[in-house]
Amino acid sequence: MAGKKVLIVYAHQEPKSMNGSLKTIAVEELSKQGCSVTVSDLYEMQFEPRATRKDIIGDLQNPGQFNYGTELSKAWEMGCLSEDVIVEQKKVKEADLVIFQFPLYWFSMPAIMKGWLDRVFVQGFAHDFPQCFDSGLLKNKLALLSFTTGGDKGMYSKEGDSGDIRYLLWPMQHGIMHFCGFSVLTPQICFAPESVTEEDRVQMLTSWAKRLKTIWEEKPINCTPEWYFK
Amino acid sequence: MAGKKVLIVYAHQEPKSMNGSLKTIAVEELSKQGCSVTVSDLYEMQFEPRATRKDIIGDLQNPGQFNYGTELSKAWEMGCLSEDVIVEQKKVKEADLVIFQFPLYWFSMPAIMKGWLDRVFVQGFAHDFPQCFDSGLLKNKLALLSFTTGGDKGMYSKEGDSGDIRYLLWPMQHGIMHFCGFSVLTPQICFAPESVTEEDRVQMLTSWAKRLKTIWEEKPINCTPEWYFK
Repeated sequence: MAGKKVLIVYAHQEPKSMNGSLKTIAVEELSKQGCSVTVSDLYEMQFEPRATRKDIIGDLQNPGQFNYGTELSKAWEMGCLSEDVIVEQKKVKEADLVIFQFPLYWFSMPAIMKGWLDRVFVQGFAHDFPQCFDSGLLKNKLALLSFTTGGDKGMYSKEGDSGDIRYLLWPMQHGIMHFCGFSVLTPQICFAPESVTEEDRVQMLTSWAKRLKTIWEEKPINCTPEWYFK
Repeated sequence: MAGKKVLIVYAHQEPKSMNGSLKTIAVEELSKQGCSVTVSDLYEMQFEPRATRKDIIGDLQNPGQFNYGTELSKAWEMGCLSEDVIVEQKKVKEADLVIFQFPLYWFSMPAIMKGWLDRVFVQGFAHDFPQCFDSGLLKNKLALLSFTTGGDKGMYSKEGDSGDIRYLLWPMQHGIMHFCGFSVLTPQICFAPESVTEEDRVQMLTSWAKRLKTIWEEKPINCTPEWYFK
């Protein structure tokens, strides 16, 4: 939709990968609609995933006993966060929709993306107490996980060895996105792109492009335990 | 138990933290039993969490299209993994029990620990196809997640905003540990140590030390969907 702002947080090392193609299609399709699209290409940026003292510029509140969460929150308040974190927060703040594009690593996101969340979604910026879940500080924004898997759809079913794919969405969609107030759109999942035919891969890309055409009309999921575990 | 080998993968920036104390108590108690204890202190080691081409020494199988999983697995076969990964794999291989000690960040482990898993648990070393789950390559080893939370126990109940704590254990215990063949011991969870009294914190440490005295007699959990979601 013209005028909307989209941030794509993208974690893949290879532009020619399925994840790279999914990212490129999103940029193209959303731009065509008149959206303003920003990509945080985490590997290309060599984004720092480690949560360390370096994230705070200047003196600590309590140098004798370093508490990352407390120091980070205070640094946010004082405008003393490291520059790379501030830049990402600005992108999030401006975005109407944040798309996370990644390959599933160990039932979750790759460390480089987890680190982006650990460092960027600071208390005071993304949430606070009691401003969390429906009153999280990033409310009125949409979040969407778009990812590829190694295993096929059958593996990620209730009867499959890996269990229902929704089980593993809980920490990411509920524990992070919903916690910060995001409305969560249905995830875009490409099962086992490396094991299917070229035709199937093209179909995955086509259906993503098609979905994006009407993405702004979508209703968020009802992010409650029932959605995940019933 | 005398002669047993334990690896503690530890992710906290501050030795004086609750996580630091829990780690120290484990080292002391297990050493007292005659176990050989190794600690991978990830922040101290400045462990690299990013999954990149640097993890493969020498030429790639397919330099034209980088596939991390495929290249890593091949590099493992050929003995061409980067040294820091090989060192950690050796520790895992020797261990009878691996304890993961960390503060819960966003319903999961901190990125630095996720990156340790992304990079160290290589296909061919930790699992293969079909050698996964009960036939995972790390079978006959025990794994235990020991972590602290920000929220209290009520928040992490079925009725709480964060849902049952077991929901978020699924990706870590089932999707990683069980997937690689580990038998999973009951997690050690310290709820909200920053919000309780000093007396309660001491109690948390004492009960961990007490548990460790008979840790080798414990029966693993039955790591099935029922344990997590019923």
